[in-house]
Order: sequence, then C-alpha cells, then structure tokens
Amino acid sequence: RKRVLVTGGAGFVGSHLVDRLMLLGHEVTVLDNFFTGSKTTVGHWVGHPNFELVRHDVVEPYMTECDQIYHLACPASPPHYQFNSVKTVKTSFMGTLNMLGLAKRTKARFLITSTSEVYGDPEVHPQHEEYWGNVNPIGPRACYDEGKRVAETLTYGYHRQDGVDVRVARIFNTYGTLNPFDGRVVSNFIMQALRGEDMTIYGDGSQTRSFQYIHDLVDGLIALMNSDETRPVNIGSSDEFTIGDFALLVREIVEKVQKEDGTLPTPRVQVIYKPLPTNDPQKRRADTTRAKQVLEWQPRWTVRMGVEEMVRYYKAKMAEGS
Amino acid sequence: RKRVLVTGGAGFVGSHLVDRLMLLGHEVTVLDNFFTGSKTTVGHWVGHPNFELVRHDVVEPYMTECDQIYHLACPASPPHYQFNSVKTVKTSFMGTLNMLGLAKRTKARFLITSTSEVYGDPEVHPQHEEYWGNVNPIGPRACYDEGKRVAETLTYGYHRQDGVDVRVARIFNTYGTLNPFDGRVVSNFIMQALRGEDMTIYGDGSQTRSFQYIHDLVDGLIALMNSDETRPVNIGSSDEFTIGDFALLVREIVEKVQKEDGTLPTPRVQVIYKPLPTNDPQKRRADTTRAKQVLEWQPRWTVRMGVEEMVRYYKAKMAEGS
Ligand SMILES: NC(=O)c1ccc[n+]([C@@H]2O[C@H](COP(=O)([O-])OP(=O)(O)OC[C@H]3O[C@@H](n4cnc5c(N)ncnc54)[C@H](O)[C@@H]3O)[C@@H](O)[C@H]2O)c1
Ligand SMILES: NC(=O)c1ccc[n+]([C@@H]2O[C@H](COP(=O)([O-])OP(=O)(O)OC[C@H]3O[C@@H](n4cnc5c(N)ncnc54)[C@H](O)[C@@H]3O)[C@@H](O)[C@H]2O)c1
Ligand SMILES: O=c1ccn([C@@H]2O[C@H](COP(=O)(O)OP(=O)(O)O)[C@@H](O)[C@H]2O)c(=O)[nH]1
Ligand SMILES: O=c1ccn([C@@H]2O[C@H](COP(=O)(O)OP(=O)(O)O)[C@@H](O)[C@H]2O)c(=O)[nH]1
Ligand SMILES: O=c1ccn([C@@H]2O[C@H](COP(=O)(O)OP(=O)(O)O)[C@@H](O)[C@H]2O)c(=O)[nH]1
Ligand SMILES: O=c1ccn([C@@H]2O[C@H](COP(=O)(O)OP(=O)(O)O)[C@@H](O)[C@H]2O)c(=O)[nH]1
Repeated sequence: RKRVLVTGGAGFVGSHLVDRLMLLGHEVTVLDNFFTGSKTTVGHWVGHPNFELVRHDVVEPYMTECDQIYHLACPASPPHYQFNSVKTVKTSFMGTLNMLGLAKRTKARFLITSTSEVYGDPEVHPQHEEYWGNVNPIGPRACYDEGKRVAETLTYGYHRQDGVDVRVARIFNTYGTLNPFDGRVVSNFIMQALRGEDMTIYGDGSQTRSFQYIHDLVDGLIALMNSDETRPVNIGSSDEFTIGDFALLVREIVEKVQKEDGTLPTPRVQVIYKPLPTNDPQKRRADTTRAKQVLEWQPRWTVRMGVEEMVRYYKAKMAEGS
Repeated sequence: RKRVLVTGGAGFVGSHLVDRLMLLGHEVTVLDNFFTGSKTTVGHWVGHPNFELVRHDVVEPYMTECDQIYHLACPASPPHYQFNSVKTVKTSFMGTLNMLGLAKRTKARFLITSTSEVYGDPEVHPQHEEYWGNVNPIGPRACYDEGKRVAETLTYGYHRQDGVDVRVARIFNTYGTLNPFDGRVVSNFIMQALRGEDMTIYGDGSQTRSFQYIHDLVDGLIALMNSDETRPVNIGSSDEFTIGDFALLVREIVEKVQKEDGTLPTPRVQVIYKPLPTNDPQKRRADTTRAKQVLEWQPRWTVRMGVEEMVRYYKAKMAEGS
C-alpha cells in the first residue's frame, strides 16, 4: 500500500487510473485545477478514507509526502491545449518542474505521461523510442509538443543530476469513456454517428492513427511505474487506421448496436470533409517492442471491442438525458 | 535614443552588443548573474550616465521600463550549459517567460537570441528557417536545444496571444574576442596553437560548421531588432568548413602572425584526435536568404580576417600576461 499522488487525476486518463489505484488499495491524492477535468469523474471516491481531492494548479509549488507521483496534469486534446497556448506550455514546464522538485524532496518515484506528439509528424514509421521526432517548434501544436519535449528534458535532468527515480510513458492516441466532448476524433465520430449528424473528417482522411483503449493504457502506466525501466516507453496500439477507414468502422459499429436495439435510423449518417488543421501529423503508429520486452505489456482490447463498449456507454448516457 | 535592456549583457555577444548600443547613444541597462559573463567585459561603461549594470538572475521576475529588450541571458558553450543542465533549461524557459511578461507590460519590443541548435543534427542542408530540426529531446545537449526551442514556442505564444512585438534571431556559431576560455572550438584552437599545445579535434574532424565573426552578428541583431520581421531569422555565415580543415587554417594563420612577429616556434603544433561528444551535429551551415532579403544583411568578415584579428588580440593579451 503506497501513498500515490495523481496530478490531473480528474481528467480522462487520470480518473480511470485513480479507479484502478483505489481498487488496488492505495492511498490516493488527486491534484487538479479542473481546467478540462471535473470533480464528477472521481466523485464516487469522495468520502473514502483512502482518497483526497485537492484543487491545485501545478504551475504553483505543492508540498506533500508521498511514494509515487503520476504526473498527468496537462490538457491533451488540441482544442483544449490551443485554447490558451501560453498556459499550456507553462503547465507542462512549471508543473513538471514542481513535481520533480517534490519527487526530489520526498524521494518519491516520478512518472510523467508524455506523448507520441514528441515525434511530431514522423519521418520514421512506426515510431520507436530512439526516434528524435519532427516537430514544428513555433506552430499551433508547439505549446503541447514542445511543452512535453522539454518536460522530458527536465525529467532526465533531475534524473541525472539529482538522482530522481523517473519513468516516462509516451502515450499514443487513447480513447475511452468519460470524455465525450473533448473534440478528439474517437468521441467526435461516435457522438456524431449516435446523434445522426454528419461525421467530420479533417483533410482527405488519408492520415493514420492507432487507437488504444483506456484500460490497456492504465495497465501499461501501472506496469511502467512498478518496473525498473527509466528510459521512455511507448504505450499505445500498433493497429493503424486511416481516419477515413476509421470513420466507416465507427459508423458500422454504431449501426450494429442500433440494429440490436431496434433504433437504426434512416437516412444513414454521412461522412463529410473539413479542412485539415495546420501541422496535423500524417501518420502515427506505436512501435511497442520496448513495452513488450521490459513490461511484458501489450494491448488486449481491439478497436472493435473498445469502440463498441464506448458506443453502448454513450447510448445509455444519452438515453438518461446526460 | 531608446531605453534598451540587454539580458546576458556581460557575456561574449552581450558585451559586444552593449558597446555598439552605447556608441549609438542609447540608454542601456544590463541584467546578468555573471554565471559565464563578467563585470570586466562591460567595465569600461560603468559610471557612464547612459549605462546601468544590474546583478539579477532572469529566472526571477524583474520590473523596469524600457523600449527594447535584447534577451541573451543563457550559457552558450557546451561545457557551460552542461555544467548544470536543470539550471540551463530553467534559465531558458523562465528567463524568457519573465522577459516576455516584461515586454507585455511595457509594450517593449522583444528580441531573443535563439540558436542554430534548434535544428539539431540537421537532415536539411543548409538550414533554412522553415526546417523543423532534428533534436534529441533527452540527450546531453537537450537542456540547451530544447530550452531554446520552447523559448521560441513561448515567444510566439505571447506574440499571437498578447500581441507582444517579437524578433527571433537564430544565431549560428560565432567567434570573437572577449571569450577565450569558453571551451568552444575557435577559442580552443587559437589558444592551443598560440601556446604551442596540441590542437584537439573531437571525432575525425569531418563534421562541419560555418563561423561568423562577432561584428557581423551585432550588425545582424541590431538590424533585426529595428526591422519589421517577426518570423525567425538565421544570422550566421554560410562559409562552411570541416573541423579538420578549420584546425589547419587556424594553425596557418597563427604561424603567419608569429612569423611576422618573429616568434615562430619549433616544433610545429600538432593536431590530435579526441572522442566526439554525444549528439555532436554532423554538419551545420546557415541559409541566410531571409536575412539578405528582409534585413539586407550579410556577413562582411571572412574567417581569415576574423581569426587573424583574434590571434593578434590574444597574442597581445598573452604578452600582457592576462
Ligand atoms: N488521451 C490521450 O490520447 C493522450 C495521449 C498522449 C498523452 N496523454 C497525456 O495524458 C495526460 C492526461 O490526458 P487526458 O487525456 O486525461 O486529458 P484531460 O484533459 O482529460 O486531463 C487532464 C487533466 O489535467 C488537469 N489539468 C490541466 N492543467 C492543469 C494544471 N495547470 N494544474 C492542475 N491540473 C491541470 C485537467 O483539469 C484534467 O483533469 C496528459 O498529460 C496528456 O498529455 C493523453
Ligand atoms: N556564441 C555563439 O556562437 C552563439 C550561437 C547561438 C546562440 N547564441 C546565443 O547568444 C546568447 C549569448 O551567448 P554568448 O555566446 O554571449 O554566451 P555567454 O555565456 O558568453 O553569455 C551569456 C551571458 O548570460 C549570462 N547569464 C546566464 N544565465 C543567466 C541567468 N540565469 N540570469 C542572468 N544572466 C545569465 C551569463 O553570465 C553571460 O553573461 C545566448 O542566448 C546564446 O544562446 C550564441
Ligand atoms: O515539495 C516540493 C519541493 C519543491 N517544489 C518546487 O519544485 C521546483 C523545483 O524544486 P528544486 O528544489 O529542484 O529547485 P529550486 O527550489 O532550487 O528552484 C521549485 O519551484 C519548488 O518550489 C514543490 O513544488 N514541492
Ligand atoms: O472530428 C474530427 C477530429 C479529428 N480528426 C482527425 O483525426 C486525427 C486525430 O485527431 P485527434 O484530435 O483525436 O488527435 P491527434 O492525434 O491529432 O492529437 C487527426 O488527423 C485529426 O485531424 C478528424 O478527422 N475529425
Ligand atoms: O514587468 C514584468 C512583468 C512580468 N514579469 C514576469 O513575467 C512572467 C509572465 O508574466 P505574465 O503577465 O504574462 O503572466 P502571469 O504573471 O499571469 O503569470 C511572470 O512570471 C511575471 O512575474 C516580469 O518579470 N516583469
Ligand atoms: O576543442 C574542440 C572543441 C570543439 N570541437 C568540435 O567543433 C565543433 C564546434 O564545437 P563548439 O563547441 O564550438 O560548438 P557547437 O557547434 O558544437 O555548439 C563540434 O563538432 C565540436 O565537437 C573540436 O573539434 N575541438
């Protein structure tokens, strides 16, 4: 039983991680400023003697005693992180600095959730951990991509200089319940298809992504935290889709669920095309060789299984009227 | 006549810039923590009514009123910036943040001295400003390279979000008087040759650099500050040498000067080889098309002229015993 600090614990990934850590019997403290997260995602733990929820912005220092820090605090969806790009890069840099300072003082183990965005619009495919990336340092995505890159730089700076025990997870696109309105592709497509709206493909849909389900990610993060691996480790799926094919797959799954429930609407939802955002990466797929070797981890959820679970969840939520 | 703030103004580039700004009649305030700079480099201005020297670390906020900010504060030589890599990246990030905050409050124009290191070990040659770079985010040079990349990200964040009037100079390798012991290649080679020591080539000497003389850089910085160009602008030389050839050229120039002075020693100094530092860029040459077009700037000093001036300067200094 450990004292575990989770920054950004009220967000999408954080709340799933907190659920798992609580079920494992740890003492969990969540730090969150509720910029993109919400109290309701962890609301079911409030009042539990092992749980504490603290409203705190990680840009400011924070003192506590703990054994492990999962440092997630940072908006992750392009519309969110571009809302105030200066704030995003400050959160990434100063939040990580403060949590590393805390780890140094308490000798806690520190894990940061970095991202496949450190590889940018990659020229090496699939992306392995030794690849240095192709990132525009002054483009609209830079606040997030460069913020994470320099957060990694800081992390290894504290590791080499102060002996802080660090773990770096480079997370690839992840989807799952709890985050329907984040503007990212999986939730957009599912909600559009469920509501009978046009499904919006940005660009011509030829860009690729590989999508992992949240449960696999949580497994990977906990495995990494409790491993001896201090190098960066990709956590993601290597099951690559073009966005165009993915739209059709989501539509097919939504229709299947609707048919089973006898709610299949006519006419069928259509796919429409919108402009491609600037610097949108052309392809992305995780090379997870290292995770397999050092963590014995690999994804267990297929996209079909995960999307179907999400569709049922959102459908039930919509029926509830929430 | 303007009120000009120069951070890092006691360093190599800063002190040359300060000389020029003072001669142009501006009111100049220097902020420096004297980590690599020294009071003596600007000592000749102390007491001048237009000059002020303030001991201040840019990691901390600073308030003043001014019209232009040249933000240079940051160690630039690999041995210096690797001495405390966490401090380097903090200087780069928080120093830039604070100076942008100051620029926002005072509506001063803000110029940052970024670096060709944002291009890393480049795969595009020569390097133009649209190239995104090839940088190892967690290597030994990352504290400097990623620190500068994220400082640019911040700069354009404040530009877009708060309307701060910004200038970004990406400076390529620069040499000149005042900085004999910075561990960089030009001063190392000259001092070694003058002292009759072995000249140390790291690696096999096939890596390339292009070297600009400090007077050209100062011209370029002042031209950029007073131009309308808000995009990044390379300031450097496009005269490319392998490090091996450059060693021979320096030796030849040193011997020429020694011969004229009748001090040519025997035996001749030798070139020796040492291990190549990790992530040492294989080639680097500035594409200065943009600077030519928008600033009508181009280097006027050849390497032969610049190195010869430096050799005479250091020889005189050595004769003085300093
Ligand atoms: N979801 C993905 O596909 C994905 C992919 C790569 C990396 N990641 C990383 O995983 C982490 C969690 O992402 P997510 O998808 O759960 O995003 P999210 O936006 O749902 O969660 C982020 C959480 O951090 C909080 N937060 C933001 N700024 C804060 C600040 N300054 N102080 C305190 N709390 C703050 C938010 O309120 C929110 O609860 C992030 O670090 C993200 O970069 C996610
Ligand atoms: N010399 C080059 O070839 C070169 C190339 C590219 C970019 N640059 C950039 O030009 C600028 C000046 O470089 P330089 O060659 O004169 O280096 P330098 O080390 O001689 O000068 C840097 C100055 O900044 C000061 N400083 C460092 N940290 C500080 C802090 N936290 N607070 C206040 N002052 C601080 C140092 O004391 C020193 O006076 C740097 O930003 C550097 O990155 C230089
Ligand atoms: O328990 C702690 C210890 C440190 N810090 C912050 O972490 C950062 C880095 O701390 P460190 O001790 O490494 O550096 P310093 O305080 O010397 O800047 C600083 O902003 C501290 O305020 C924190 O938030 N909690
Ligand atoms: O409604 C949407 C949302 C996103 N995308 C595309 O889907 C991919 C993944 O986008 P997301 O924002 O989920 O994450 P990213 O990987 O870009 O950070 C990108 O190519 C987006 O341009 C899309 O076609 N339609
Ligand atoms: O004259 C000033 C104004 C601001 N700042 C610092 O610049 C940074 C960014 O300032 P900004 O106003 O953008 O942000 P905020 O204060 O809201 O964090 C802050 O750390 C300020 O302390 C400064 O050093 N001098
Ligand atoms: O005594 C020296 C110092 C540097 N170098 C090499 O010269 C080049 C320029 O090094 P410097 O430190 O001046 O600047 P950099 O461009 O690497 O930042 C690099 O390839 C170094 O490995 C060298 O051969 N001998």
